[in-house]
Amino acid sequence: MFVILVYDANEKRVQKFHKICKKYLTWVQNSVFEGEISEANLRILIDELEEIMDIKEDSILIYKFRTKKYYDRETIGIPKPSHEDLFI
Amino acid sequence: MFVILVYDANEKRVQKFHKICKKYLTWVQNSVFEGEISEANLRILIDELEEIMDIKEDSILIYKFRTKKYYDRETIGIPKPSHEDLFI
Repeated sequence: MFVILVYDANEKRVQKFHKICKKYLTWVQNSVFEGEISEANLRILIDELEEIMDIKEDSILIYKFRTKKYYDRETIGIPKPSHEDLFI
Repeated sequence: MFVILVYDANEKRVQKFHKICKKYLTWVQNSVFEGEISEANLRILIDELEEIMDIKEDSILIYKFRTKKYYDRETIGIPKPSHEDLFI
């Protein structure tokens, strides 16, 4: 399945969120990741995020698609850093 | 067409972004909006956002779909406020 994952995390935890998501998905922009993932791996990813998140402050939103069906993705403004490790 | 719009804006402009997006789309969570919109209205929405955004600090990401095709949306953590005007 194809997913788009958006998180909103307290600044203190943003890098941890990023690091975990990067293991399973492709970084698109800021707090947005996307990619093909199995249901099983998605559960593991969510478990890992839940371990570090503060449910009173952070949130995760996941859109699930049977296949990669979007026909366009448009970005306006700052692009993601060309070398994403800068972020880490 | 159906779109998912995610913005990342400097704190100073977040409320303005929210207010503009709300005119055209439905608020899902934090900086995420979704909804049916015509290509023409999407252009107007983007124009309005570009007027207030600082392209060196802010960004907008838009996924476009021919129809509302996602089969599931999962949220974990803080829900959006039940009365969204609290945000404004």
